[in-house]
Amino acid sequence: MTDSDGDAGVCVLVPDEEGAAALTAYPLLRPQLLGPGGEPTAGQRDHAVVLVHGFHPVERTLALLPRLPHVRLVQTLNAGYDGWIGRLPPGVGLSNARGAHGAVVAEWVVAVLLAHHRELTFFAEAQRRRRWERRTGRSLAGSRVAVLGAGDIGRHVAGLLRPFGCEVTLVGRRARAGVLSTAGFAAVAAEQDVVVLALPAGPDTDRIADARFLAGLRDGAVLVNAGRGTLVDTDALLRETGGGRLHAILDVTDPEPLPPDHPLWDAPNVTLTPHVAGVTEGIAARAWAVAAAQIDLFAHGRRPDNLVIDPT
Amino acid sequence: MTDSDGDAGVCVLVPDEEGAAALTAYPLLRPQLLGPGGEPTAGQRDHAVVLVHGFHPVERTLALLPRLPHVRLVQTLNAGYDGWIGRLPPGVGLSNARGAHGAVVAEWVVAVLLAHHRELTFFAEAQRRRRWERRTGRSLAGSRVAVLGAGDIGRHVAGLLRPFGCEVTLVGRRARAGVLSTAGFAAVAAEQDVVVLALPAGPDTDRIADARFLAGLRDGAVLVNAGRGTLVDTDALLRETGGGRLHAILDVTDPEPLPPDHPLWDAPNVTLTPHVAGVTEGIAARAWAVAAAQIDLFAHGRRPDNLVIDPT
Repeated sequence: MTDSDGDAGVCVLVPDEEGAAALTAYPLLRPQLLGPGGEPTAGQRDHAVVLVHGFHPVERTLALLPRLPHVRLVQTLNAGYDGWIGRLPPGVGLSNARGAHGAVVAEWVVAVLLAHHRELTFFAEAQRRRRWERRTGRSLAGSRVAVLGAGDIGRHVAGLLRPFGCEVTLVGRRARAGVLSTAGFAAVAAEQDVVVLALPAGPDTDRIADARFLAGLRDGAVLVNAGRGTLVDTDALLRETGGGRLHAILDVTDPEPLPPDHPLWDAPNVTLTPHVAGVTEGIAARAWAVAAAQIDLFAHGRRPDNLVIDPT
Repeated sequence: MTDSDGDAGVCVLVPDEEGAAALTAYPLLRPQLLGPGGEPTAGQRDHAVVLVHGFHPVERTLALLPRLPHVRLVQTLNAGYDGWIGRLPPGVGLSNARGAHGAVVAEWVVAVLLAHHRELTFFAEAQRRRRWERRTGRSLAGSRVAVLGAGDIGRHVAGLLRPFGCEVTLVGRRARAGVLSTAGFAAVAAEQDVVVLALPAGPDTDRIADARFLAGLRDGAVLVNAGRGTLVDTDALLRETGGGRLHAILDVTDPEPLPPDHPLWDAPNVTLTPHVAGVTEGIAARAWAVAAAQIDLFAHGRRPDNLVIDPT
């Protein structure tokens, strides 16, 4: 099947050339670039069945959908999908890029934990002041780490941390082999040196790390948020970190971006990165590889593995 | 055999209570604390057969040895031993604490590599300025990493980096299974994204990373020194990092401590930590566990596994 077949194949609207190139490896797919300004052409309006949402606000894609009556699948390039729930037109499902970013996000989790334990910010500051100032850090070896979220990120975090001598507990919605339930976690929360949040946002997880949750952690525990800012009750966290009882390392905040006058910026015992845990060179290639495989399943009449919102 | 046996057992002079406690698990060993000021008592002069060198300058222990005529073994708590070569009295050997610190030093190597690739210093600075400033870092996945030194540190570095998707090459004095020779390394040096120095100091390794070695690395390569400052020609390194062709991450320097006016402090593309790669909480316990096992072998009339300087 080639371009000379005209309308043959499944018409997929893509936001950029990299996406178009990624899809050409799949004979059933016929990628078309969205026109300038992101406006579909008349032909696209008549034929597009799949719409790929690029790295831009959800609202832009939602605004397009009423003008694309044949679209049945929105494919995203990231993993979070809370912004789409209840907002898609009837008959339109959504699949995400789960599997593309977990390894990179897990790498960030290990990076920030090691930097914290080995005092790298202190040493960077000592270098700036030209001071040979030694300090005894801590090793991750022997640390108990609980990861809330036993999906793509969580499993990668466990695989990376275990060789450092960490005792990793995965926590999921339901208990299963190698995974504690949320209730099971409550029983061991006070034993954890590190708690990593790697959960999707949603009604079940909103403010899961509230005052009561944080109070249940041991003195000196480290909370890492690699999920979504809404997982954490920021005011409760500021009370625990401000008193020095907990340390927090957050890649995501609520709101986001964090306004310049927000108290998190210079709160003691809080380390921030600006939602970059999954952002490294090659991010688009990784996302497109997963997205293309999902769209190809759809084009073959199968259910995409990553279909996270069924059509209504 | 108990303390009531008086002189029974091998008399071991130790510098601190933690060492004395560590040795009590070994029935053949009779630990004795060195007196105040580190001076041996008359009884210690007559009986001591092993002397443990604590975390202090080599010169202090060397000055004691002439007053301890029966000592046959000096046991150290660290891994480097270049400072002892040719300086021990006749009949005295030296064993080190190889195996105690490799995992922790390897953890530092991974920590600084991740912090560099994921731009953690940039983000720490952005937080200080209350700026949500995103930047695309790099993942370690797919990196080619050569580790010069296939011993305790090198093997741990390989074991920790491989799960991140790094292709790790160990380089040793002699080629063997899984280890390239130094000549073999020269043939692949230009393909490495990261080169880690984890070698002992000594005449064979002095300035091994000289101008020619550094010129053979690819543009953008990262050099990590977790061994000794004398492994690197600092002037040659400053030329390569100053021009931006290489980045260096150094835990050890020559001289050490680095004087406040040394150009390394604020050289571009140079990250320094003050010889802390092996320094984390529990360092003494790890060192004593290895040291005690070595001394126990000696007490049983066997050669300590870590005997690095034979008695002359």
